[in-house]
Amino acid sequence: MKLDTQGSRVSEAAFARSELRLSAYLEHLRNVARTKTYAYNESSINLPTDTKLFDLALQTAKKFKNRHLKFIIVVGIGGSNLGTKAVYDATFGAYDVMHPERLPKMLFADTCDPRLLRSLEDVLKTITHPDEIVINLVSKSGGTTESVVNAEILLATLARRITHPEQRLVITTDVDSKLWKLAEEKGMEHLPIPDLVGGRFSVMSPVGIFPLALAGIDVKALMKGAQTMRERCLSTTHENPALTSATVIFAHLHGHPKNINDTFFFHPELESLGKWYRQLMGESLGKPKTRSKKEVKIVPTPTVSIGSTDLHSMGQLYLGGPNDKVTTFVSSKKTAHVNVPKKRMLSGLVENVDGKDAAEVMNAILHGVIAAYRKQHVPFMQLELDDLSPASLGAFLQFKMIEMMMLGELLDVNAFDQPQVELYKIETKKLLV
Amino acid sequence: MKLDTQGSRVSEAAFARSELRLSAYLEHLRNVARTKTYAYNESSINLPTDTKLFDLALQTAKKFKNRHLKFIIVVGIGGSNLGTKAVYDATFGAYDVMHPERLPKMLFADTCDPRLLRSLEDVLKTITHPDEIVINLVSKSGGTTESVVNAEILLATLARRITHPEQRLVITTDVDSKLWKLAEEKGMEHLPIPDLVGGRFSVMSPVGIFPLALAGIDVKALMKGAQTMRERCLSTTHENPALTSATVIFAHLHGHPKNINDTFFFHPELESLGKWYRQLMGESLGKPKTRSKKEVKIVPTPTVSIGSTDLHSMGQLYLGGPNDKVTTFVSSKKTAHVNVPKKRMLSGLVENVDGKDAAEVMNAILHGVIAAYRKQHVPFMQLELDDLSPASLGAFLQFKMIEMMMLGELLDVNAFDQPQVELYKIETKKLLV
Repeated sequence: MKLDTQGSRVSEAAFARSELRLSAYLEHLRNVARTKTYAYNESSINLPTDTKLFDLALQTAKKFKNRHLKFIIVVGIGGSNLGTKAVYDATFGAYDVMHPERLPKMLFADTCDPRLLRSLEDVLKTITHPDEIVINLVSKSGGTTESVVNAEILLATLARRITHPEQRLVITTDVDSKLWKLAEEKGMEHLPIPDLVGGRFSVMSPVGIFPLALAGIDVKALMKGAQTMRERCLSTTHENPALTSATVIFAHLHGHPKNINDTFFFHPELESLGKWYRQLMGESLGKPKTRSKKEVKIVPTPTVSIGSTDLHSMGQLYLGGPNDKVTTFVSSKKTAHVNVPKKRMLSGLVENVDGKDAAEVMNAILHGVIAAYRKQHVPFMQLELDDLSPASLGAFLQFKMIEMMMLGELLDVNAFDQPQVELYKIETKKLLV
Repeated sequence: MKLDTQGSRVSEAAFARSELRLSAYLEHLRNVARTKTYAYNESSINLPTDTKLFDLALQTAKKFKNRHLKFIIVVGIGGSNLGTKAVYDATFGAYDVMHPERLPKMLFADTCDPRLLRSLEDVLKTITHPDEIVINLVSKSGGTTESVVNAEILLATLARRITHPEQRLVITTDVDSKLWKLAEEKGMEHLPIPDLVGGRFSVMSPVGIFPLALAGIDVKALMKGAQTMRERCLSTTHENPALTSATVIFAHLHGHPKNINDTFFFHPELESLGKWYRQLMGESLGKPKTRSKKEVKIVPTPTVSIGSTDLHSMGQLYLGGPNDKVTTFVSSKKTAHVNVPKKRMLSGLVENVDGKDAAEVMNAILHGVIAAYRKQHVPFMQLELDDLSPASLGAFLQFKMIEMMMLGELLDVNAFDQPQVELYKIETKKLLV
């Protein structure tokens, strides 16, 4: 992974200031890593080296895996499924509809939309043997309305197809939550989430590892990628991408403040990774007050763009509209290759593409956009992933989680809570009587 | 469709001012409708009553439709596919992965990502008879790089399965574009787009009607919904939803300006509809200068949220972060129904849901959020669709297109061009040699 900040329009002085401001926090992060415990808000950084927890998730996946497995339904919402969906979609999911024969498929029951549930019920109606299905209920608190409602509905449907649906259920939750206790009581398979690891930082815990391993994704490589990236992001050097990226984003919240943070992925299959980052940033930074009780005036709202699709949709606004955004382009040169035929059926319409690799065309578009951003003085960073393998995805996830901790520190907000989410839950409870 | 602006935090005086400011423009729109021609920038409003163009698209769909049809591949990007995808996904597409047996399926080749193309090639490799496939190449200019590249690659693959792939190709483009002429020359099926109807306003032209009809969607109802909505939006009364919505969005660009416009759909299958609106707003309003050459300082950046999913992701930022957004909640009470079982496997975790309809739970969440927005003084509108039928979708699309024309008028920008998009295209051409 390579981060280029040449187009960031941030001064060397700002980088130096940021490094100074974060030096104590970096020391703290290194301490957290040294303890190898889950005693700190930042303890999620210890997940990639926690072989015990990893093995537990992996062994459980092995127990449920078999060659007849067709569907893994992840019942979870927000931090309980976004990381899993990010890695799954980047690997298989984005093109699942074009590969009905590729199994097992992971399906996601997040919100309790009736049409979504009806469709999932249709899938369950095709089940003829317990081996074909696993339902993974993921809820940190153990009491998420949507997830419990969805699990109940799906288990009831499954009960009409197999005699012991609860034996194909794996629960992932906090130790000692009500759900944990229920699982123990009823002898249902269950996996723990360390208490201080919040949903949006939990992808390397059993939350992500169990379903991803079950889906056949190389979770060892994912963890290894995260571990290597952690070392890079805990270093003090200029080569620390988390520090660099956090500095650029923070710098643009001042002066002519930019309250929109766009991640512009040049691979459609990374859209779910963008949605994972959207939660990471939105929940971590979206706070009314700093830790010292001052009003937070500007917080970046994260958005996700897909290249080249969104150039034909948002390109006009990005290049011609107000300069209120900081963009990170994310791409990789190494994906698949497909060539434009040399003998063309529709000749004379577009020049200089005969026989070219589609990847080359995409690369020209990406660099065309970058040149245009530079000319328009729109600030950007350019992130190049080695490839879209689990190792690269693990590295990206870890990089962004540490970047967000640093942004919390720079903004002086608590990046690990989400108190205002309760506001709508309280109102919803009043209506659900 | 019902639009409620009680939570908009816009004064009666602002509504009155806006009505006054737009009265001449409304008169202009009514004139455009009266002419029934395509001589104006706003002429897209004449599409729902253009029976001749509609019949042409419909008859072409009938010609290509047969009971063996498996896949419709729409090759198009931006305005060439976003409207089609919006309606298709709302009707079938969002759950296509869960219904592999439901045919025909519509697949989208927008960007020329190699992995996307590889997957589409895998689909084409399953084709055993010409009747099973239609490729619809949609390009207004006829020279969109991605679309031409994708069409070439897919046609070359198809040529290895059937002898005359060009006989299963339907081209939709401007009359007299190079592509139009090529189609005429080679005797390939082709459908016109009226010259002054821009991509983002073209969903009711053959751009949307042909592939949607082919997919089995009731396009007559779609047009009827649009037509009825057009009459509402060209009226002068307070019951004009386009005028009302444009006023709310415009009002919040002043005072404490809000540069983010969020459409918060409480149905996951409407996400693509949100992406269609994202282009409509982004391209129409994202201009550096007004028509009288003044700098445009604030333009709303459109974002899409999905309820309840994004409450667990962006809810904290929306309720606890800076007040920099205007939100439109979009929902419908009439979709499917699924009940939570009365006899529960996971009892004691969530209260007051036993035996309830999932739609009722969703409704409680929606109204819980609305109550929380109100308490936090976050401005919002509430749009209730009658249902998610083609007629309702047609009404929504027409409502938003006229709303955007009015927003262009209020902001004094040309809502019908996209000159800055050329900036990256020029740079890309330099790199594609």
